Amino acid sequence: MDDGMITPVPKNKDSEMSQKNICLTVAYDGTDFCGFQSQRGTGLPTVQETLEDALEKLTGAPVQIFGSGRTDSGVHAWGQVINFYTVSTIPPQRYPMALLPYLPDSITIREGKAVPLSFHARFGAKNKTYRYQYYCARQMSPFYRRYACHVPYKLDVEAMNQAAAYLKGSHDFRGFCAAATPVENFVREIYECSVTADHPEEPCLLTLQVQGNGFLWNMVRIIAGTLLEVGAGKRRPRDMPALIGLGDRRQTGKTLGPQGLFLYEVNYLDE
Amino acid sequence: MDDGMITPVPKNKDSEMSQKNICLTVAYDGTDFCGFQSQRGTGLPTVQETLEDALEKLTGAPVQIFGSGRTDSGVHAWGQVINFYTVSTIPPQRYPMALLPYLPDSITIREGKAVPLSFHARFGAKNKTYRYQYYCARQMSPFYRRYACHVPYKLDVEAMNQAAAYLKGSHDFRGFCAAATPVENFVREIYECSVTADHPEEPCLLTLQVQGNGFLWNMVRIIAGTLLEVGAGKRRPRDMPALIGLGDRRQTGKTLGPQGLFLYEVNYLDE
Repeated sequence: MDDGMITPVPKNKDSEMSQKNICLTVAYDGTDFCGFQSQRGTGLPTVQETLEDALEKLTGAPVQIFGSGRTDSGVHAWGQVINFYTVSTIPPQRYPMALLPYLPDSITIREGKAVPLSFHARFGAKNKTYRYQYYCARQMSPFYRRYACHVPYKLDVEAMNQAAAYLKGSHDFRGFCAAATPVENFVREIYECSVTADHPEEPCLLTLQVQGNGFLWNMVRIIAGTLLEVGAGKRRPRDMPALIGLGDRRQTGKTLGPQGLFLYEVNYLDE
Repeated sequence: MDDGMITPVPKNKDSEMSQKNICLTVAYDGTDFCGFQSQRGTGLPTVQETLEDALEKLTGAPVQIFGSGRTDSGVHAWGQVINFYTVSTIPPQRYPMALLPYLPDSITIREGKAVPLSFHARFGAKNKTYRYQYYCARQMSPFYRRYACHVPYKLDVEAMNQAAAYLKGSHDFRGFCAAATPVENFVREIYECSVTADHPEEPCLLTLQVQGNGFLWNMVRIIAGTLLEVGAGKRRPRDMPALIGLGDRRQTGKTLGPQGLFLYEVNYLDE
């Protein structure tokens, strides 16, 4: 405001000398956010802006954060990883408590630590794990409406796992991403893809876990939709290799709703 | 409106002849309700009014429901039981689906059935089961903020179970109810009282389950608060008999928050 009146502290020089790179592990309930990525000026609430605003209030200076990746509107995170540069002297492990007064209870900082200046939450990610939850019962539970896809019938968990196994390894996943995905290379490597049930005899909550070196847009939600059709007996597990080979978005399953999806964990090269 | 103009259908006689007593099992997320019991005229949202309004829209006639008991503001239910009289010809088992368009997604009808005209959800209840959830971690999970009490340290589950065992049986529970509870007989029988953990080695979500023939106001939340102090090492399990004997609300634990409490099940004499 009074730029011309006050000689500013030479922040840049100081910053370079004492600048730290802080890495936070963040959990959030995505229900009430329009995704992770900042949409400043639109008035739409995003996780990134909420975190940046909280960090600015805490540290007294504007902060730009880098996330491991975007999550879409309504998608949750248990282990989203972000980093940011700051000259603040707040001990890194104190961020979870220190940010508490500035954040809504839909966002929790699970861990804070200092990382090398070269660390970048997005470009340094080695692999990511997503989870997708199905709630299988005639009527949806009010306690899972925000956190699972409602499936009003039983699913064949064994068949889903047989189909899921075919997705492991390096494949061209162009049939398993949103039609307009603007990338040239659709090859991703999937390390783990399996479905577990909460109760062996009478499964109600099913959890699909997928770990891979990268994911295309909507890839987990389309995998979840395709496996849902296998579990419902509409597709056979043994048809999966041909389906992957086709590379045709029109042949794979529906994109299931965002509420069942969680960015569960991000691992880095130096860990 | 036009009472004088239209000869009303002699509903009473018809009703008596074709009246049915319908019993519904209802789950609700209590977060956004000011309790179960109707507070008509106040504008405060209650579960009872929401159900009555939905039933009126569905059946075309005003409906009064009877619940197995009230739940306080913010308290949830997995197995609340209600009954109501209607002349509607909707098959009882169809109510869960038929009410869907008229209810918010925070309320789910899990089951519908016809019961004898003498059935009353409150007076016929043989026993009730409540659950109370503790979420034990430094930082609260955004996914449990509505459904568990946050405990930012570890609890000794074995000690809690030792203490819980002393609550079983018939006792005068005047020390375990809200100070102003307007009853004369404070004796209740507890059939089950135990705490289970989600993971044996590293428990995070603890669930207290209490079944009894009746409960005083805030009784489960005060039991939960007392057992919390046992789990934290502030009370010894062997002090429980004396604590019960004292009958002094000032000596028992805090009333924990409503968000961790669930009316889990209600059983009836004829089942």
